[in-house]
Amino acid sequence: MPSHGTLAHRLIADHLVEGRMEPGQEIGLRIDQTLTQDATGTLVMQELEALRLDRVRTEVSVQYVDHNLLQADERNAEDHAFLRSACRRFGIWYSKPGNGVSHPTHMQRFGVPGRTLAGSDSHTCAAGSLGMLALGTGGLEVALAMAGRPLYVTMPEIWGIRLTGRLPEWVSAKDVVLELLRRHGVKGAVNRILEYHGPGLEQLTAMDRHVIANMGAELGATASVFPADAAVRDFLRAEDREDAFRELSAEPDADYDLTDEIDLAALEPLIARPTSPGNVVPVREVAGEPVGQAVIGSSANPGLRDFAVAAAIVAGRQTDSAVSFDINPTSREILADLTRMGATFDLIAAGARIHQAGCLGCIGMGQAPAPGRNSLRTFPRNFPGRSGTEQDAVWLCSPETAAVSALTGEITDPRDWAAKEAAPPPRLRLPERASVNRAMLEPPLPPEQAARITLERGPNISGLPDLDPLPDALEGPVLLKCGDNVSTDEISPAGAKALPYRSNIPKLAEFTFTRIDPDYPRRAADLATDSGPGHHFVVGGENYGQGSSREHAAITPRHLGLHAVVAKSYARIHWQNLTNFGVLPLEFDDPADYDRIDADDRLRLENLHTDLAPGAEPRLRLHNTTKDETYEIHHHLSDGRRRTVLAGGTIAALAGAG
Amino acid sequence: MPSHGTLAHRLIADHLVEGRMEPGQEIGLRIDQTLTQDATGTLVMQELEALRLDRVRTEVSVQYVDHNLLQADERNAEDHAFLRSACRRFGIWYSKPGNGVSHPTHMQRFGVPGRTLAGSDSHTCAAGSLGMLALGTGGLEVALAMAGRPLYVTMPEIWGIRLTGRLPEWVSAKDVVLELLRRHGVKGAVNRILEYHGPGLEQLTAMDRHVIANMGAELGATASVFPADAAVRDFLRAEDREDAFRELSAEPDADYDLTDEIDLAALEPLIARPTSPGNVVPVREVAGEPVGQAVIGSSANPGLRDFAVAAAIVAGRQTDSAVSFDINPTSREILADLTRMGATFDLIAAGARIHQAGCLGCIGMGQAPAPGRNSLRTFPRNFPGRSGTEQDAVWLCSPETAAVSALTGEITDPRDWAAKEAAPPPRLRLPERASVNRAMLEPPLPPEQAARITLERGPNISGLPDLDPLPDALEGPVLLKCGDNVSTDEISPAGAKALPYRSNIPKLAEFTFTRIDPDYPRRAADLATDSGPGHHFVVGGENYGQGSSREHAAITPRHLGLHAVVAKSYARIHWQNLTNFGVLPLEFDDPADYDRIDADDRLRLENLHTDLAPGAEPRLRLHNTTKDETYEIHHHLSDGRRRTVLAGGTIAALAGAG
Repeated sequence: MPSHGTLAHRLIADHLVEGRMEPGQEIGLRIDQTLTQDATGTLVMQELEALRLDRVRTEVSVQYVDHNLLQADERNAEDHAFLRSACRRFGIWYSKPGNGVSHPTHMQRFGVPGRTLAGSDSHTCAAGSLGMLALGTGGLEVALAMAGRPLYVTMPEIWGIRLTGRLPEWVSAKDVVLELLRRHGVKGAVNRILEYHGPGLEQLTAMDRHVIANMGAELGATASVFPADAAVRDFLRAEDREDAFRELSAEPDADYDLTDEIDLAALEPLIARPTSPGNVVPVREVAGEPVGQAVIGSSANPGLRDFAVAAAIVAGRQTDSAVSFDINPTSREILADLTRMGATFDLIAAGARIHQAGCLGCIGMGQAPAPGRNSLRTFPRNFPGRSGTEQDAVWLCSPETAAVSALTGEITDPRDWAAKEAAPPPRLRLPERASVNRAMLEPPLPPEQAARITLERGPNISGLPDLDPLPDALEGPVLLKCGDNVSTDEISPAGAKALPYRSNIPKLAEFTFTRIDPDYPRRAADLATDSGPGHHFVVGGENYGQGSSREHAAITPRHLGLHAVVAKSYARIHWQNLTNFGVLPLEFDDPADYDRIDADDRLRLENLHTDLAPGAEPRLRLHNTTKDETYEIHHHLSDGRRRTVLAGGTIAALAGAG
Repeated sequence: MPSHGTLAHRLIADHLVEGRMEPGQEIGLRIDQTLTQDATGTLVMQELEALRLDRVRTEVSVQYVDHNLLQADERNAEDHAFLRSACRRFGIWYSKPGNGVSHPTHMQRFGVPGRTLAGSDSHTCAAGSLGMLALGTGGLEVALAMAGRPLYVTMPEIWGIRLTGRLPEWVSAKDVVLELLRRHGVKGAVNRILEYHGPGLEQLTAMDRHVIANMGAELGATASVFPADAAVRDFLRAEDREDAFRELSAEPDADYDLTDEIDLAALEPLIARPTSPGNVVPVREVAGEPVGQAVIGSSANPGLRDFAVAAAIVAGRQTDSAVSFDINPTSREILADLTRMGATFDLIAAGARIHQAGCLGCIGMGQAPAPGRNSLRTFPRNFPGRSGTEQDAVWLCSPETAAVSALTGEITDPRDWAAKEAAPPPRLRLPERASVNRAMLEPPLPPEQAARITLERGPNISGLPDLDPLPDALEGPVLLKCGDNVSTDEISPAGAKALPYRSNIPKLAEFTFTRIDPDYPRRAADLATDSGPGHHFVVGGENYGQGSSREHAAITPRHLGLHAVVAKSYARIHWQNLTNFGVLPLEFDDPADYDRIDADDRLRLENLHTDLAPGAEPRLRLHNTTKDETYEIHHHLSDGRRRTVLAGGTIAALAGAG
């Protein structure tokens, strides 16, 4: 029997404008809200320009500045000024640097149960904590949603996760989602929505749920959904927005495509070893490893509670001299609350480095650890090099584990530390009302004023590249053959060096794939002829393009001449981004063919215009001219997406459809 | 009649181990305390190694980590680990990242009236606020002081600055030192000690005096000296160190080499326009200019009062959406105090970005403004490009002016804002006892443990370069001819790009002089032959090498082949650094000869071994072989410094002396 009665179904049905709700079918959803962050937002604003948008059509669209906060040179501040001017032009809320990370800030100021949210950041799924259908996606998809068009996604399976029992002392929400990653790995939820239910929910606040919903992205999920219940009402009341509350939950007889159950009482402190969020083990298994850094923060542990528990642990104590104990507040309100309740003082006195509210080290903007020294972080990701350090050793864990390890100087299970120190579990007294700050956000200008605003475009804002239509035949070498789970961090790195160029495609392209092969950009450039970049292929394994939603991971290789990827499977958002920028995402019929292709083999695709015509069978043949072999391949492109790829991407397709 | 009875004379006499106290004579001083910061400290530690030091001989030596805090890649954290290991090896206190800027932190935890302090940071003079004789100098001079050797300086003139009257509302200590810069410019106090006295002192707390003493560096002063009086006793009591107090002041009949007087009551809010601390005008003269950034912090406004007054101004208000309002706490204790008294909360609520304690934007580590947008900073320096932005527009002002301008979005005299808003002047209630934190500092290890420590040297710690002895003749082109007041920022830039290479001379050398001529490093390299780098000259104007104490500004040009500078005059610290690393600092007898030399002219010096022999007249002849002209030049090198330069620098000289 097909699944039914889930909250995810209801949210989808309430917003369905196109397609059928059958897993695997492409559906179009009406989008009520959007969020963009600065590292993806500068392109989104240029896409709005290319779409000739006058004013956004959504209920609420918000631009946050949370990524590029270091300002090592003039580029970041130039981007901020550009983004603010675009917000004023297009009717978008502007959240200035220091207001905080998009996800918790959006949840606090704009989250509404039952609404859809599309965000150009992969952790947008965190808003599922409020009973929203929240989808991280590429910037262009968000731009289209801002323009009032539907968001197209593949109808996912609904995975019911039943929570029972109560969390033991020293175990918290992060350990719940680490348990899911331990069980199912980084592609366990691809093309699935994780829907949480069951009596265990009662213990989890809305911000605890944010922790769990957020790292749905690490499981590859399309979204995470929690009911809007008393915990959500409490949250909205504390934020002075109780009127936004609306009770929402699955039907009593809801049936899921898949099910799993977690007995919270059986959990223990967990930690993900370097260099994947899926490498989860009990903390005790790795206890004693020396620690050089411990960081609390990011959208994966953004709540006041997460900082307050760390403060309570270190209060009156001193962190180890060899440990950099970094505190990254996640929103202005949370930092204000933390300060008001005295916890900021406790952290300062214990030797913490208190940073501005923002993403910071989570996207490699500073806080890079020393090579080979263990860094414990409450972040969602520990892909290799994402910290900014080539030979990094980043571990993901709860605030309790990070704080205790900062005191001891080695990886420590908080239960063992508490037993040794006779330390009682922290009893937190959190304020009932948040330090609500509406004034920090700049509202959209009225239309007549907005129409007079000119975009403040600095020299680092390059404009969108012109992409050529897909030729009828593609031939070129395999410039790169990569393994499973290649992340968009490896395709187009974040970090303090590359991020300032997020508005400058030609410059950013020089970083493409350099984490895997420093020569890739040069070898791609060597293929260029007088008529433009030469074609080449990339061959990938499973879950190609996991991680961040950055569309730069599609645009910059395309700029360098990549027209087709052949992989075993794709991460959802990157697959969309590839099609949006005119790159064919192809898949092997027989995964064993992956092993038959070597780097530098020449591949050839023919008759693409015929084979990709609307209605044609989704099957192609790939010729390996070096080995004189042919492989059966296929794709999952809807007719609309075929037209898009053939045209050279969405903007070209829309212009052509004019 | 020669000056006498001044406090400066007494401090010098108490520590004199060599030379006569006559202005212009070289004197050797016993050094009681040293401070190093991380951007200069990594070289200092390598110099201690080169000197084969077992353990420091000072009363107190402290290594602060306050500059390289961004950690955009692994280099910063690697440096921190190296510095900590060196502290453990050599018997030095270690202050970890986040503890704060060296100057206020040292003042709080270690400052003692009557003691000498040598620091490898030009703003070390700030400790004169406590009645110390505090001298900023090159790292090698500090390393020698740590090894128990005297610090050699030119006996300065003593300049008595008499303060009378009381500061009006909305005018504070920063305006006092800006008034001095307005009167005397950036080389007004070269080879002078600024000694403050008079009834106006009574109103100034020790931290207010720190503000004034600190920017003695911007006037080119050798040191700034304040008496140790009731204000100093109050300060030390608040820091729980009243036992360190000792009353010190000038004799009642003290006579100064020069005198000046400031009537505090006659001052108004002042501001230094871009791009020199000497460009001082009344704020009202430039009111109305739009502001993109306002920053409170740095050793030039480090006191709790400076942050609290800004907090009081913005409390209950919201900063302009176009302004980034950055708060850089200067020490962990001050941030703790600010938080305890509720001021941190007020700043957060008003839209501030709260950063970790450290130097941050003051040395171009982040916080770079957008090009052409005005940035108001309470910092000491606004040299062009120092902010990290090529086309920057940085203004220097008081916290009052910066905070008010952050609210209005334009440069605003706080008196005019207060009149318009009917805002009363802030009445601050500062805590009587500071949030003293001793545990944050790691004390020196006992000798037997220290002897077993190995330095943790990462791949970015390059070691000191080997410098060749001075040849008997030098011939080469003038690779650069520069104007007056060239700063060490222009010779060897700070900032987020270059600073991470402070431990790596070959890599750092690639930045030499690039602010003035991006081609300098390449053109120097082009002169190299198989036997090493080719010789070249730099011709400078007045006050060559002002600003930061970084010895890298001597080492990196020397590494590229610079063996002699010919200038009209030199800033004190850079002159010493040049000699320490084997570069001849020569001066024109007739400043008009400066105009006769063009860039690329070939210059020649002969018979250097004879002309620089001990006891020889300090006169040389410089041949311009391109123009066939000869210029009379001279130097101020003592016999000891001649031996040093001839040997190829201090370390080579000491090694040669066995």
